Amino acid sequence: MRTVYVNGDYLPEDQAKVSVFDRGFLFADAVYEVTSVLDGKIIAFDGHVERLARSLAELGMDMPMSPEALLDIHRELVARNAIDEGLIYLQVSRGAADRDFAYPAADTPQTVVLFTQAKAGLADAPMAKTGMKVISIPDRRWGRRDIKTVQLLYPSMGKMLAKDAGVHDAWMVEDGAVTEGTSNNAYIVKDGTIITRHLGEEILHGITRKAVLAYAAEAQMKVEERAFTLAEAQAADEAFITSASTFVMPVVEIDGVPVGSGEPGPVAARLREIYLDESRKAAV
Amino acid sequence: MRTVYVNGDYLPEDQAKVSVFDRGFLFADAVYEVTSVLDGKIIAFDGHVERLARSLAELGMDMPMSPEALLDIHRELVARNAIDEGLIYLQVSRGAADRDFAYPAADTPQTVVLFTQAKAGLADAPMAKTGMKVISIPDRRWGRRDIKTVQLLYPSMGKMLAKDAGVHDAWMVEDGAVTEGTSNNAYIVKDGTIITRHLGEEILHGITRKAVLAYAAEAQMKVEERAFTLAEAQAADEAFITSASTFVMPVVEIDGVPVGSGEPGPVAARLREIYLDESRKAAV
Repeated sequence: MRTVYVNGDYLPEDQAKVSVFDRGFLFADAVYEVTSVLDGKIIAFDGHVERLARSLAELGMDMPMSPEALLDIHRELVARNAIDEGLIYLQVSRGAADRDFAYPAADTPQTVVLFTQAKAGLADAPMAKTGMKVISIPDRRWGRRDIKTVQLLYPSMGKMLAKDAGVHDAWMVEDGAVTEGTSNNAYIVKDGTIITRHLGEEILHGITRKAVLAYAAEAQMKVEERAFTLAEAQAADEAFITSASTFVMPVVEIDGVPVGSGEPGPVAARLREIYLDESRKAAV
Repeated sequence: MRTVYVNGDYLPEDQAKVSVFDRGFLFADAVYEVTSVLDGKIIAFDGHVERLARSLAELGMDMPMSPEALLDIHRELVARNAIDEGLIYLQVSRGAADRDFAYPAADTPQTVVLFTQAKAGLADAPMAKTGMKVISIPDRRWGRRDIKTVQLLYPSMGKMLAKDAGVHDAWMVEDGAVTEGTSNNAYIVKDGTIITRHLGEEILHGITRKAVLAYAAEAQMKVEERAFTLAEAQAADEAFITSASTFVMPVVEIDGVPVGSGEPGPVAARLREIYLDESRKAAV
């Protein structure tokens, strides 16, 4: 049985509980991060903690503890659950208080939950060789997607629509342009240029996105951060996604239309290789 | 200490907990209802259960139990917590499962939570005599506001913006028209006609809204269900809101502009009186 961290305690997963009055449960008043583990070490920890602090600040919440204390918990869970390859999930909510739309007193203790998920084949994912297929759906999420809140019902519904359509994920489209996947940033490659949606309130500011774009620039690849349409994506040479748990993953079909050759392309493959190499080196 | 219902058990509130793996906590994959209690009896129970069933169905979930069984729990909590006047909160989530955007197996037990909140002065609310003030904010919620999910962070933020501005609530505006308040439907009155946003995916289908519009029609008042602008609202003779917990409540100021005389108007007062009379008669 997994060990789960809840507000200072390491508990067997069946005893890992939060109050029904927790604002994460009643109001989705909570933010989260998901960090990968490779070879028992944590990937891109600093980036995730930095984004966590930003998400909290945007909602008027403080960091519940120092980055060092958070790293200790991450490492303790990796050790206790013997995670060689997998994910660490972290959620911070505004805490438990009698139900009221208005925030509770500022000294209300936040709720901090962390758990692990063992996932074999994160790095050596078979899908990196075959590519994933996506459908498009309208983006009907709230307006502040740059804050990583647990308001994930729509992405969850999107994942089910994809599953029902026999594909792997859905790309969301708003005002004629692709925003992102249900839990990943979206990219296309055309004539050697990597194109991905510019940052803003419309998309999540991916930690993997940031790293991959930096590695692409270092490798002398041309990058354009701008909105692109679904038609542009379908006519691209390549498409791919990035996320903390899939790293770089090729997309070979969009709404039934093959992208490029219909096979994973060289740019995505190269970026995946660089990202994995560099991330392993920097892992903590 | 309050008694809270959690999945078949009546528990002291400090023991009322849900798994950290509950999808209500991790994905806001949950719906809710709030029902009023007057004189120890439940207001508009059938309407709330009907809407609960609809919200669940829209998300591919079943009712967790029969309306009769739900009514029994409502009554048991009213009795155990000696609620004469107050609210009963009900939440149903898709249940607990290892974290995955895709829904868990259909036979995953749902999580059912109910608790009460004693609230003196619901019916005899001082604000009904003085009226409430609102500010306007952009409506940045997700696209399916007709499903009563716990994705309430934006309305919660709106309530805080209102509080910071020294007023009682915020009206949300989208594409130039008022959608609704943070937890209530919005109305204006002009030349004897009651105007309120038409139903659709843009607003919650208020149970109190439905009843109040029916009573208004019975009382020979003219009703128009259509979008209205903020300027139209500020130039109206009266404005008011309805919700399960405030019933009918006059709005006397919008973004610093007095509505009509700046005092609660006769239409809102009359509708509040009718609604309270009829609701008490029909209470269970």
